[in-house]
Amino acid sequence: MTSIDDRTSPPARLAEDDAISLDELRLATRNHGMPLEMLDLDVTPPGLHYVLVHYDIPLLDPATWRLEIDGHVDHPLSLDLEALEGLGEADRVTRRVTLECAGNGRARTSPRPISQPWLDEAVGTAEWSGVRLSALLDRAGILPGAQAVVFTGADHGVERGIEQDYQRALSLEEVARDEAFLATTMNGQPLPPQHGAPVRLVVPGWYGMTYVKWLVRITVIDHVFTGFQNATAYRIKQDRTDPGEPVTRIEPRALMKPPGFPDFQTRTRVVDEGTHVLTGRAWSGHAPIARVEVSTDGGDSWADAEVAPPGEAYEWQRWSFVWHATPRRTELCVRATDADGRTQPVSQRWNRQGMANSHVQRVPVLVRVPPPEGSQPGT
Amino acid sequence: MTSIDDRTSPPARLAEDDAISLDELRLATRNHGMPLEMLDLDVTPPGLHYVLVHYDIPLLDPATWRLEIDGHVDHPLSLDLEALEGLGEADRVTRRVTLECAGNGRARTSPRPISQPWLDEAVGTAEWSGVRLSALLDRAGILPGAQAVVFTGADHGVERGIEQDYQRALSLEEVARDEAFLATTMNGQPLPPQHGAPVRLVVPGWYGMTYVKWLVRITVIDHVFTGFQNATAYRIKQDRTDPGEPVTRIEPRALMKPPGFPDFQTRTRVVDEGTHVLTGRAWSGHAPIARVEVSTDGGDSWADAEVAPPGEAYEWQRWSFVWHATPRRTELCVRATDADGRTQPVSQRWNRQGMANSHVQRVPVLVRVPPPEGSQPGT
Repeated sequence: MTSIDDRTSPPARLAEDDAISLDELRLATRNHGMPLEMLDLDVTPPGLHYVLVHYDIPLLDPATWRLEIDGHVDHPLSLDLEALEGLGEADRVTRRVTLECAGNGRARTSPRPISQPWLDEAVGTAEWSGVRLSALLDRAGILPGAQAVVFTGADHGVERGIEQDYQRALSLEEVARDEAFLATTMNGQPLPPQHGAPVRLVVPGWYGMTYVKWLVRITVIDHVFTGFQNATAYRIKQDRTDPGEPVTRIEPRALMKPPGFPDFQTRTRVVDEGTHVLTGRAWSGHAPIARVEVSTDGGDSWADAEVAPPGEAYEWQRWSFVWHATPRRTELCVRATDADGRTQPVSQRWNRQGMANSHVQRVPVLVRVPPPEGSQPGT
Repeated sequence: MTSIDDRTSPPARLAEDDAISLDELRLATRNHGMPLEMLDLDVTPPGLHYVLVHYDIPLLDPATWRLEIDGHVDHPLSLDLEALEGLGEADRVTRRVTLECAGNGRARTSPRPISQPWLDEAVGTAEWSGVRLSALLDRAGILPGAQAVVFTGADHGVERGIEQDYQRALSLEEVARDEAFLATTMNGQPLPPQHGAPVRLVVPGWYGMTYVKWLVRITVIDHVFTGFQNATAYRIKQDRTDPGEPVTRIEPRALMKPPGFPDFQTRTRVVDEGTHVLTGRAWSGHAPIARVEVSTDGGDSWADAEVAPPGEAYEWQRWSFVWHATPRRTELCVRATDADGRTQPVSQRWNRQGMANSHVQRVPVLVRVPPPEGSQPGT
């Protein structure tokens, strides 16, 4: 009774019905998505950018924070924030990156895995600045035989019975692409606590589990990493015993800024009849977006949207679509295809943990004949 | 079918069972609470401070924003942001205020009203700066016979069948207290979009529904305000036909920073046996906090915590309690009493819309014998 048991930390579960459990609600009131009207902004401010935190948010003191770089290296390093920020301009990088949670869309799958119950909104685009990972690893000197690099955060908890500091590893091949960096600013400001202050890992194109927050240690290892977040949690599995495939880069997705105005409770949209320009963003962690299609009849027919050319690699692209709305109840849908030919499934591509689920967004809309002017209750 | 019907915008409802509905989840993934470990911070940054938005977040351009002051006044005014910020020092005010949603705790009531499903976390403390409401009303000149002041936001939606711009009114007596002001900054920075940029109302001591965001109009009226948010939504009602009492000032509440570390799914806390200092905050919109009591046995017995003296009026107060934890499973509870003698109920004080529900927080904890050093899986 006094060690961590299944009641405290249960194994992975599937929901038995559509109802959201208290466990899921506890996660949903802490973590938050991007309100989809924020698809209007090129860069998402903190507080509007999605956040998922596994355990508690640690409040680290930037004055005493240190980063250890150790393991299978020639010269282990220990840096404070000043030393990290004092590296030369050649080692610094600023990138505008679209970031999405691997569990986005999970709560729309059936049967639903019990975890953070995202619908469509676990995304955001930020401008991160910091220091190339390669600059640090070059100084430490990776020894022959190294296989992976492990990143450890200061956040500590238990998950499916495994007590752990949050840890994720990248293979040496991924590190050799020289895209990963250690961010010290988000949109030009020091990282806010919930985004990993003072330093987090950024790996452009990958789902968010890779962006280790509150980074305190980088360890080069000469064997395969078997930590929970790589080997168990972020896997695409069909059943409990399936070792599964690792979750890596972001699958293509398009989202629409819901048109008109919402009902408070149902979030159904009310749109006046007439011509509307539907807009949104689309992205992929594999390749630029090549095509966005919109359906205004719940997925029965599709038509091409206009897509803006790619900006930075892994930055979302704006799309727009002219819609002649006539009075009716309907569902608007949107789907993206990337230049590698990856596309979004119209029905779900189920897996046991609800990972990398990029099925299409559906926006219920009531198109109405607008009421006469001045019919709103006044003061 | 093409006007707003009950399917698009249903009437108020109670849940039939404990299960959270998709309607509630849609709200929970948009809005967010303050992760309770942030009770450590005196001032809560945006992104960690709770946010509740009824409709969509409007993105207003500060360069073209205008505030109209009209109705039952001598000299209607129309101000841009520069004119508002250019008022003299005597008209400016900075206040550190604890703000809570009137629906905090709603999802723990039974039967549960269907709305934003807060557990305990809809709170935050910010430092707001701006211009006294009285300075503007003095310039406009309130005419004899005035009864109330109506505040209109730029956010537009439908709620229980009523299409509306978000509006709330204050009585002239409340305005005469000269505590309300129009905030243009939060924690020294321009308001972020989700907190009402460029200008929101602040009414220290009141629940959040009063803090009208994206403020665009202030109208003095010579009759009773019958708008939806005052007359229907924010009321303490026992049944559907009860006109109810208005929701006004914040009831006393204490919250605890959950000790130890969490399980990801259940948020149950794991604490090592030994002595721990439990800490948290307590506040009331009526009077300073006079007493905080803690229970470490699920509410069977209570002992006094130490409470810091009041800071600014309506700013939360820190409390602490020394706990000698022995191995067992238990529930920690905390409750506050203010200097007016108002206290938190141990069991729920039910009302049909889940408003001003300040029943005590309960934190499930497993106290364990710590495992031997080095038993965590390493890299």
